[in-house]
Amino acid sequence: MSNAPILLTPGPLTTSIRTRQAMLVDWGSWDRDFNQLTASVCEQLLAIIDGAASHHCVPLQGSGTFAVEAAIGTLVPRDGKVLVLINGAYGQRLAKICKVLGRQYSTFETAEDQPTTAADVDRLLTADPSVTHVALIHCETSTGILNPLAEIAQVIKRHGKRLIIDAMSSFGALPIDAREIPFEALIAASGKCLEGVPGMGFVFAEKTALVAAEGNAHSLAMDLHDQHAYMAKTGQWRFTPPTHVVAALHEALQQYAEEGGLPARHQRYADNCKTLLDGMAKIGLQSFLPAEIQAPIIVTFHAPTDARYQFKDFYERVKAKGFILYPGKLTQVETFRVGCIGVVGPDGMQAAVNAVAEVLREMEVLDI
Amino acid sequence: MSNAPILLTPGPLTTSIRTRQAMLVDWGSWDRDFNQLTASVCEQLLAIIDGAASHHCVPLQGSGTFAVEAAIGTLVPRDGKVLVLINGAYGQRLAKICKVLGRQYSTFETAEDQPTTAADVDRLLTADPSVTHVALIHCETSTGILNPLAEIAQVIKRHGKRLIIDAMSSFGALPIDAREIPFEALIAASGKCLEGVPGMGFVFAEKTALVAAEGNAHSLAMDLHDQHAYMAKTGQWRFTPPTHVVAALHEALQQYAEEGGLPARHQRYADNCKTLLDGMAKIGLQSFLPAEIQAPIIVTFHAPTDARYQFKDFYERVKAKGFILYPGKLTQVETFRVGCIGVVGPDGMQAAVNAVAEVLREMEVLDI
Ligand SMILES: Cc1ncc(COP(=O)(O)O)c(C=O)c1O
Ligand SMILES: Cc1ncc(COP(=O)(O)O)c(C=O)c1O
Repeated sequence: MSNAPILLTPGPLTTSIRTRQAMLVDWGSWDRDFNQLTASVCEQLLAIIDGAASHHCVPLQGSGTFAVEAAIGTLVPRDGKVLVLINGAYGQRLAKICKVLGRQYSTFETAEDQPTTAADVDRLLTADPSVTHVALIHCETSTGILNPLAEIAQVIKRHGKRLIIDAMSSFGALPIDAREIPFEALIAASGKCLEGVPGMGFVFAEKTALVAAEGNAHSLAMDLHDQHAYMAKTGQWRFTPPTHVVAALHEALQQYAEEGGLPARHQRYADNCKTLLDGMAKIGLQSFLPAEIQAPIIVTFHAPTDARYQFKDFYERVKAKGFILYPGKLTQVETFRVGCIGVVGPDGMQAAVNAVAEVLREMEVLDI
Repeated sequence: MSNAPILLTPGPLTTSIRTRQAMLVDWGSWDRDFNQLTASVCEQLLAIIDGAASHHCVPLQGSGTFAVEAAIGTLVPRDGKVLVLINGAYGQRLAKICKVLGRQYSTFETAEDQPTTAADVDRLLTADPSVTHVALIHCETSTGILNPLAEIAQVIKRHGKRLIIDAMSSFGALPIDAREIPFEALIAASGKCLEGVPGMGFVFAEKTALVAAEGNAHSLAMDLHDQHAYMAKTGQWRFTPPTHVVAALHEALQQYAEEGGLPARHQRYADNCKTLLDGMAKIGLQSFLPAEIQAPIIVTFHAPTDARYQFKDFYERVKAKGFILYPGKLTQVETFRVGCIGVVGPDGMQAAVNAVAEVLREMEVLDI
């Protein structure tokens, strides 16, 4: 078990043994003790964004995508229109969700190494007043690019529109303050920067918007209005919760607080990212993004050009040395990705860099 | 931890320590090792219904309701019509799913202690040829009533209609053979009679029906056609899987096989149920259902009539003695429920009965 490789992936990631051990207990989903666990999780999550006054935290069973779909389906009225800002695969997926749900939408796409700007959004909203909601991926995990959330949020507010943020891979590590950044919904999940295990997402939804959202949803299971109303009334989840996942998240949040909360988590990930970037640069591996727009979450590297490099082989060899990397997600350029998140520090990142260097030598990959 | 109460609830239920310990490992969701785990789980699940030739097993993130909704949304075409057979809360919920999804449906409701009969279904299908699908709850967990699946399935087949079975609380314990019982879909979940932890459901979907279902779904996350197509192509889940829940289910399935598979699991639960019914009868607690239609899954008991009986108090006292009971789900009669499923045997059930007897004495509940 202790020989399991470190996951340098954007979730599921490496969790602490304490977090995993929290899953050794079976909880009754109807029991008061478990309701308290859920309430405590929601309270701690809200505190991370200072959102208790303005937002409800609505947890949802399933993966992060389920929570994104639930947020769109619940909060965007059937006659609403979503402007989806895209610079990677998760933006594409959000547009696809709008399409499948039958919500009107338009897209604005920039290159994968090009953040959306506040000026873009200003122009787009001026040109199309029928837009009611704007959807933004905070850290686009398909490259690791960071979009300028604060600036974009202000423009959207000025236009009187509503912002839905997919902060799946940034929440808990990058600061987002609900008192300063106006948003209708922010979506994240258990198994990312909070270092819990995967199995549930959650949506911070503006209180007034959630009340007004009754009857919007296209789904019973993914109706966040009903999910919240039931939980507010009974303290329970509407349908069977992933009890062990919730218990693990509760334990992970304790450790988050002990570490020093968001600033400490952010700093560790930033240190991880710097160690990774510096180390890989020494080997000659170039990151895809310039440093200014690189979030300290996941880094995309150009694959070596040498014909002896094959991702599959490279991956297996690095795994044998104790590290699981992640494939690239770009269509135009060959890349691979390395996550900076999870229970790992700069020493671990340096060890991963060393493993990569050794493997490239073993594979006789010279042309990097 | 060893002092945690036994869960006599219809899931989440008490799992084995081996199953929980399987969650002490973090798996990479993209990794071959994890793909093998998923493939092995699906193969073992299909074997339980002898369905490998006829059906695909499509796992889905989320609770059981998510899988039910996904089955309806994916397999019933937008111009289909579902006849929902109801004798309890889960049948009601299935009808609500049809409503929210905008699928045409009609309902046939019998009393909560009245199984739907094959003759009922024959008559209903003759009267309304526009029905394309019939939805049946195998064991209606809100009481514990067993509906006559085999007979109803034959009638549906004779009418050339398609059957969708919610077998959430019966799958793995009550025999269902896909070679003998014609059905288009059967739905269950990880945290019931397989004794895994909650967090994923699965749908056995007829292969031809699943192919034909492309484009039906109202949802991206709950599209079983896409979920299956992606998994068939890549070996991976479409969106982040609940890795620890999958690992626990894999381990639970090993123990299922070691115990002797379905016949042994069925026998243990039947023994549990008998011990419970006999023991409670001795105390004077009457079960709501007659024995012939009682599934060995969960038993509903009439609450004592004595004014000194309050469920909340009763529940807390029994919990303090190590057993978590379940509230009743009937609107007309006051009841409570006791599950027969999970890692518990007749000795445990007898101990639970003894705890109930002691508690009623302590509460001075005389009028039972
Ligand atoms: C930005 C972003 N959005 C959405 C998702 C989807 O989450 P999931 O894979 O849990 O469905 C991810 C997953 O990594 C993500 O990084
Ligand atoms: C027959 C039946 N259907 C559906 C469900 C819903 O499952 P979940 O609570 O996991 O959503 C249950 C749960 O006990 C059930 O017993």
